[in-house]
Amino acid sequence: MRFEFCNPTRLVFGCGVLGRLGEETARIGRRALVVIGGGSVRRNGTLDRALRSLAGASVEADVFEGIEPNPRLPTVVRGGRAAVGSGADVVVAVGGGSVMDAAKVIAALPFYEGDPWDMIRHGRERPRVPERALPVITVPTLAATGSEMNDGAVLTNPDTTEKSYVIAPCLFPRLALVDPELTLTVPPDHTAYGVADLVTHVTESYFNGADGTPLQDRMAEAVVHVALEYGPRAVRDGSDIEAREQVQWASVVALNGWIQAGTAAPFPVHQIEHVVSAHTDLAHGAGLAILSPAWMRVACKATPEKYAQFATRVFGIPARGPDDLDAARSGIDRLEAFFRSLGCPTRLSEAGIGADPLERYARDTLRVGGDGRTLAGRPPMGLEDLLEVLRLAA
Amino acid sequence: MRFEFCNPTRLVFGCGVLGRLGEETARIGRRALVVIGGGSVRRNGTLDRALRSLAGASVEADVFEGIEPNPRLPTVVRGGRAAVGSGADVVVAVGGGSVMDAAKVIAALPFYEGDPWDMIRHGRERPRVPERALPVITVPTLAATGSEMNDGAVLTNPDTTEKSYVIAPCLFPRLALVDPELTLTVPPDHTAYGVADLVTHVTESYFNGADGTPLQDRMAEAVVHVALEYGPRAVRDGSDIEAREQVQWASVVALNGWIQAGTAAPFPVHQIEHVVSAHTDLAHGAGLAILSPAWMRVACKATPEKYAQFATRVFGIPARGPDDLDAARSGIDRLEAFFRSLGCPTRLSEAGIGADPLERYARDTLRVGGDGRTLAGRPPMGLEDLLEVLRLAA
Repeated sequence: MRFEFCNPTRLVFGCGVLGRLGEETARIGRRALVVIGGGSVRRNGTLDRALRSLAGASVEADVFEGIEPNPRLPTVVRGGRAAVGSGADVVVAVGGGSVMDAAKVIAALPFYEGDPWDMIRHGRERPRVPERALPVITVPTLAATGSEMNDGAVLTNPDTTEKSYVIAPCLFPRLALVDPELTLTVPPDHTAYGVADLVTHVTESYFNGADGTPLQDRMAEAVVHVALEYGPRAVRDGSDIEAREQVQWASVVALNGWIQAGTAAPFPVHQIEHVVSAHTDLAHGAGLAILSPAWMRVACKATPEKYAQFATRVFGIPARGPDDLDAARSGIDRLEAFFRSLGCPTRLSEAGIGADPLERYARDTLRVGGDGRTLAGRPPMGLEDLLEVLRLAA
Repeated sequence: MRFEFCNPTRLVFGCGVLGRLGEETARIGRRALVVIGGGSVRRNGTLDRALRSLAGASVEADVFEGIEPNPRLPTVVRGGRAAVGSGADVVVAVGGGSVMDAAKVIAALPFYEGDPWDMIRHGRERPRVPERALPVITVPTLAATGSEMNDGAVLTNPDTTEKSYVIAPCLFPRLALVDPELTLTVPPDHTAYGVADLVTHVTESYFNGADGTPLQDRMAEAVVHVALEYGPRAVRDGSDIEAREQVQWASVVALNGWIQAGTAAPFPVHQIEHVVSAHTDLAHGAGLAILSPAWMRVACKATPEKYAQFATRVFGIPARGPDDLDAARSGIDRLEAFFRSLGCPTRLSEAGIGADPLERYARDTLRVGGDGRTLAGRPPMGLEDLLEVLRLAA
């Protein structure tokens, strides 16, 4: 293990902490650009509460509305102009992963010269990451992406139908105000997708990381155990605040870097999913629920011992030996069955995606998420492997 | 769960990273006060390597030597004067927990007016914590305290024979440079004490934390599992670099706040141990190995379900029901046997401490670590409970 880790985001977690938005924002700035999505936070009252809290602390606020799921570059560029135009000195994201990701880039754009797409990591080109951003406060309304406490953002470029990501230290939110009560109104399907998303964040590093990370392995398993226990409760009864709370905390930990530290893991399933949802606008978590098991079924032949370990420790499946491929596959089956039990699709066809575009998806994955020929992961995959994954997912 | 979390320390982990001390320090300051202990880092060459690295990056360095185990207030005050006198703009700690703790307070003293003991949390008095400190770089040479990546420090006041702690955000090191190779020369006894120390850091929050922290529970169990697997290897063969690496990483995670987040746990065993070692200079980890099982044997009657969970998940001990006290006690026995197998003392008598001073230790614990009558924990303990703990440990 040889790695660096730093996550300076301050986290304030707990039911009701939305009420502290004003006082906390006032410690950082005087004029906020409040970034929201399609309006659900207007309808359920969360935006009103946020704005009242800001007003109560004498923070002026402008609202930038209309971040779409799979947020698009032109929308974010408009947001960057809004930030400049309003004279905002702090950006407040109230929404799900798309809103938080968009807000991070919006906060960076006032200081970024040239084409904003240059900051996105796509293909072989070396991205020109932002070096400065307005301070960001994240107020997640969904338990899923972990964006509230990390320095990543994913955007879609509609001109090129590419979806990819930027990671830069200046994008760490200054503050994550995580209030599980805000997720009580999330419907069962998106609750389920959030659980699939957070589980995939830890399985990506678990199965693709370097050897010799036993503590990270066990912490990843801890996250999955919590998702297995509380995810179904949150889907079944959206008002189960204890389940909402545990799922939300697990989603924060799943991608704030604690689990990934030292693993040096690429996220190949995410790369494939980004391509599929760039073309189809599939919900990210739904795409992961479909693609993760398919990818694992191909990848497990390369590292059966890791999959057998997962099967044994997470699902209690006995293994005949350390590299028991049958146990490995049973664990993948159980994970897929879990996603299905939550109501996630586990085949592309269930999401209305046919087999025709699979080769295009595979090629785009290699181009946008890989080096043109290979997608990093364990094992690295070429075109034929990716086609096998996509056919298993079809 | 309702909590705040922030740990801004940048961590650079890996074999050989000591060689980066100079370049990393040069990013922060130009003149370092290098704080060391009794000279072992002189004898084993670590100090020379550190100084060469600093010189290579044109960082001027003065060495402040002589931090004792259980570092004493007058020594630290002298260190603060040395920091001012040398014009240091950065403090570099090269040593174990005592050295790192002392260096943090030394870094705060140039900005602290009045009696430095006022910053230490002792008894009912409200401490006057420091608000500013020179930047600190920690280079741990022992895997134990986790001080390299947290904002706490423990000092002893020889005038009052009190040992207690300060926790303040300004004490977070700017950088933790964690090089497992530096621990290769740690002898078996202190290696074992370090393992007992890191295990106790997570059992303190596990057994004394709030209810409803399933993810934190499982992450704590993860740390103990790693200690059980790699601790014995590091003790048996000090040159086993893989074991050294895993134990060191576990010791960082055990007390950098990740495991404690949301648990709101007091650390009662530490409070008792601080009193015992203030009087006896017992090594901290050895004291914890003795006192943890004794304390657990009294405490488990209040929360048997938590102890039974620990016994089952960590040691595979079957429980007849969720609050099976027999299983709970078997788990404690196994933990004690583990400490003993490493070579730790598990009775005060083995450390040359007789039964005579036990009542004084109990009263001091209540005075220095509690509110005079009660020591916080699960359950809170009064004088009779503490005497029971100490007699079990005798």
